[in-house]
Amino acid sequence: MVGGLQFKGAEPGDRYDVFHTDCPARDMVDHVTSRWGVWVLISLRRNDLRFFELRESIHGISEKMLAQTLRVLVQDALVWRKVEPTTPPQVTYGLTEFGREVSEPLTDLFDLITRRLPPADAPHRSRADD
Amino acid sequence: MVGGLQFKGAEPGDRYDVFHTDCPARDMVDHVTSRWGVWVLISLRRNDLRFFELRESIHGISEKMLAQTLRVLVQDALVWRKVEPTTPPQVTYGLTEFGREVSEPLTDLFDLITRRLPPADAPHRSRADD
Repeated sequence: MVGGLQFKGAEPGDRYDVFHTDCPARDMVDHVTSRWGVWVLISLRRNDLRFFELRESIHGISEKMLAQTLRVLVQDALVWRKVEPTTPPQVTYGLTEFGREVSEPLTDLFDLITRRLPPADAPHRSRADD
Repeated sequence: MVGGLQFKGAEPGDRYDVFHTDCPARDMVDHVTSRWGVWVLISLRRNDLRFFELRESIHGISEKMLAQTLRVLVQDALVWRKVEPTTPPQVTYGLTEFGREVSEPLTDLFDLITRRLPPADAPHRSRADD
């Protein structure tokens, strides 16, 4: 598979065959851009959050999906997990330095898209600020 | 739902409640970062491509999933579709101006991640160029 860049128009500088299902970079991009991964990373940009706070922040996410998404992001070293030895234990999540780097283009994407959508069509505008 | 920003730490400048499942921006972010959407957008960054070329570029995508992904991206005005009146008709896809803007942060994300992964662990390096 080495040298097997299947991407039409690939350039010599390309380091990975990310269009291949076995590529480690593709796996990580898939995690970061997963159904819920993107919202967890954006949510954690401003504050470290407890599990239940994340769950409340992201409308529609189930406890099971949040736990699964966090597990993958922690494995990828994008998110850290801190357990305080209280009863019951308090678990907090935050972005690692790498997670913070990765959350930047996600935030850019999100800003681009919200700027594009016309305010008049937005039933969920949060503030009448412009 | 107006004014119902559920995101903890939200600031007055936030225009949409993207953490809400009904938010139009959330829908579009979900399409752009969907399992296959991200790869279609990155593939089309360098060249306009025919349907079968896209399918060959993206390892593991089925014809059905590619058709469905393209339909959504065309609806969102991120991708255009051109049909040439030949027999059989030739269908070409490319990025709209907005699609090109949106593909930039996706490419940044992808570059960040591929730079992070150590070359020595990469079974799918495409070239021995560094």
